[in-house]
Amino acid sequence: MLSKINHIGIAVTSLDAAVPFYRDNLGMAFTGTEEVAEQKVRVAFFQIGETKIELLEPTAEDSPIAKFLEKNGNGIHHIAYEVDDIEAAIAKLVADGARMIDSSPRNGAHGARIAFVHPKSSGGVLTELCQSGH
Amino acid sequence: MLSKINHIGIAVTSLDAAVPFYRDNLGMAFTGTEEVAEQKVRVAFFQIGETKIELLEPTAEDSPIAKFLEKNGNGIHHIAYEVDDIEAAIAKLVADGARMIDSSPRNGAHGARIAFVHPKSSGGVLTELCQSGH
Repeated sequence: MLSKINHIGIAVTSLDAAVPFYRDNLGMAFTGTEEVAEQKVRVAFFQIGETKIELLEPTAEDSPIAKFLEKNGNGIHHIAYEVDDIEAAIAKLVADGARMIDSSPRNGAHGARIAFVHPKSSGGVLTELCQSGH
Repeated sequence: MLSKINHIGIAVTSLDAAVPFYRDNLGMAFTGTEEVAEQKVRVAFFQIGETKIELLEPTAEDSPIAKFLEKNGNGIHHIAYEVDDIEAAIAKLVADGARMIDSSPRNGAHGARIAFVHPKSSGGVLTELCQSGH
């Protein structure tokens, strides 16, 4: 069902403060930023092997990332797994009795279609399914 | 300096409770368990593309993972990046002014040599360098 980790999402209060560690100290390939209006975040992307690090900075106080930062400070927010067929993946999880935050796909960065599993069903780890937009 | 994500470490109170989501619901390849005495954890491994998910269950009350769980509950604990030459990677970070938890490598699972960057220098995200043991 899953082919790889598509990305790891990391919540940060400031992209400007967080980017240098990944780009300069770790020497990771910085591939740009994008605003994802639907989730009220600005995202900085780094390529690392077949996967990506996404730094997520909130653009509004009611952004889910702002709420996470308030509670936890900077930290790893979610893991996103690449799937070929997101509807089939959601249907499989629901058939297994898992609870979804998104029972149908919505729009992510880079034209991807995404859906989050409810943390109650994924052992406390926010887990995203991601069908890349290409 | 980094070639890929070697693994993502996830702290869990119980491997027995956590394994089924990854193995059965997500259908990830479960490749076994190992006890890492030095870190007082039992680890369950899953292969996903070029990287791994490692579920970490504490084996003692003074395990770093036990302390993490007490504070946060189940959750993503660290990201480990593969490096070819761990001494060179540590030296580069130290030269950049980064603070290391481990200024020289120690033993990880599967014969790897590992070193953690101090979260103060990695924007609050526990970051591991990992030179695979092969």
